[in-house]
Amino acid sequence: MPAELKYVGLDVGGTTMKAAVVDGDGKAYRSVVMDTQPERGQEAGLETMAETIRRAVAAAELTMADIAAIGVATPGLMDIRAGLILDPPNLKPWRNVPVREYIEKAFDKPTAYQNDANAAAYGEYWIGAGRGSNSMVLFTLGTGVGGGIIIQDRTIEGEHSHGGELGHLRIDMPDRGRLCGCGARGCLEAYASASAVTRRAREELAGWRGTTTLKPYGTANDDELTAKVVFNLAAEGDACAQKVVDDTAFYLALGATAAIAVVDPEVIVFGGGMVAAGEPFRKRIDEYVRQFGLPYPVKKVKVLFAELGSDAGFIGAAGCAKQLK
Amino acid sequence: MPAELKYVGLDVGGTTMKAAVVDGDGKAYRSVVMDTQPERGQEAGLETMAETIRRAVAAAELTMADIAAIGVATPGLMDIRAGLILDPPNLKPWRNVPVREYIEKAFDKPTAYQNDANAAAYGEYWIGAGRGSNSMVLFTLGTGVGGGIIIQDRTIEGEHSHGGELGHLRIDMPDRGRLCGCGARGCLEAYASASAVTRRAREELAGWRGTTTLKPYGTANDDELTAKVVFNLAAEGDACAQKVVDDTAFYLALGATAAIAVVDPEVIVFGGGMVAAGEPFRKRIDEYVRQFGLPYPVKKVKVLFAELGSDAGFIGAAGCAKQLK
Repeated sequence: MPAELKYVGLDVGGTTMKAAVVDGDGKAYRSVVMDTQPERGQEAGLETMAETIRRAVAAAELTMADIAAIGVATPGLMDIRAGLILDPPNLKPWRNVPVREYIEKAFDKPTAYQNDANAAAYGEYWIGAGRGSNSMVLFTLGTGVGGGIIIQDRTIEGEHSHGGELGHLRIDMPDRGRLCGCGARGCLEAYASASAVTRRAREELAGWRGTTTLKPYGTANDDELTAKVVFNLAAEGDACAQKVVDDTAFYLALGATAAIAVVDPEVIVFGGGMVAAGEPFRKRIDEYVRQFGLPYPVKKVKVLFAELGSDAGFIGAAGCAKQLK
Repeated sequence: MPAELKYVGLDVGGTTMKAAVVDGDGKAYRSVVMDTQPERGQEAGLETMAETIRRAVAAAELTMADIAAIGVATPGLMDIRAGLILDPPNLKPWRNVPVREYIEKAFDKPTAYQNDANAAAYGEYWIGAGRGSNSMVLFTLGTGVGGGIIIQDRTIEGEHSHGGELGHLRIDMPDRGRLCGCGARGCLEAYASASAVTRRAREELAGWRGTTTLKPYGTANDDELTAKVVFNLAAEGDACAQKVVDDTAFYLALGATAAIAVVDPEVIVFGGGMVAAGEPFRKRIDEYVRQFGLPYPVKKVKVLFAELGSDAGFIGAAGCAKQLK
């Protein structure tokens, strides 16, 4: 086989979709972005996916003949094996969308299909923070908390496409834990998502006795008091914000220790917005993991930040395409 | 290759070790048991392992020439890849015992080495409760709570031989959870092991206002008030004992929901002593899993009791030997 095999990775999100050609070493050509506009319906959505792929190939100054395979990542709910988007909350009103079959036919290329967080995990495993490791668990921090697990080059997809749903690891008892968007109580996501950070900041502020630069945000709406603001104020030395950030590290570490007890990975990677909080935040997570995780594995497990940013999804999708052969 | 390939599986425990020849379909010949006597030292232990294997072959009325490969399972701590027992608490004073190498040389046969709970999981996956499934998680209930995870015929060993340490999944916060033997708080094992059941029974009894057949056990020692007694009294209709058993089902289900969020298996199997509590206990675990697990997977996941009893370990060890080729 020629050494020059190239792949297209497409990462479909609720707002935009992003694609690029990626070579066999995981190096990405220029990426392209298009609006997803799920409200235009799933036929339009599938056409936009195909168009984004075409534009990615054009942006790489290549033709479809240069492409060996295509990988597509979408948010859940989905049926990974069947290649179907089922009923994801942020792609309404799409339902039972045959993504893999459509793309496969549109381009007559082998097409891989994967959950977006799993694809991001695969990207980090392939050429990001987890490169060279044997097994990796990724926590993605954003509106929600997602996850992906790769063991010896294989993605833990789960029997019902729910492998690596690490945001729904329960870190507190279901009778008293915080209420999660999924309807359950105690899920990690209810403590460590961006909106959960904001909510905890409001609570901390309400009971805070000292001075705090968070004070003016007491009456702010969620557009103004964001997780980013909390992390920024913490970085500037505000004690109240630092408490919120430290608690976030603690909760994430509890999620990580569960992942250790189940799969005992070589590397645990945290990606998404909070990575911007930098090394002090990573270090706190790392310390809590070592404090609360299984004694033997935590001597050796690595706790790292993701390296690929928002490119992880399409790079990982391309990596899944590469695995097809 | 001939259809008649046979394997020896050996399951080493702190008190006894058990072995049998197992054919390629997982059918076991007559098993043999020897005392482990770890206090006699690891050289004696290795010799006993070899002797148990020889006796198993003799018990099957076969010779070593009939054996294609050998599988050995031991309790942790261990280094699965290196084939070493490291420093397991119930095999003192053994330390850094080169099990795989010793057995391999003693019999000049390919030898597989595995954690005992992982081997039991593989046994159940191969021919027990998980047979025919694509992925299975086993919780083993005994003095402690162990676990094993098999996905598409592969055991999740973990990077540091701690994959499937499901007894140390934390089900309550580390600041208020029950103290586990591992030194941490909130581990499943601190709620659902046999001794944890006894401890909770004592607590329940102390605060119990109604009549209960547990009453006479209020001053009993742990030889008399066992988990078995609690489960028996619950089966006979005692409300206090039933509360303890129901809570046990609840805690086990929380462990199961964590396994679902991480690996989303097709089947979750519970094995060990508590299986004797029968269908009502399984049904309670099942109900709690469906109440507290991720909505989509719990529509489909199966919650079953183990089928192989204490044979699971050596059958699974033989299965691991079969995988070698």
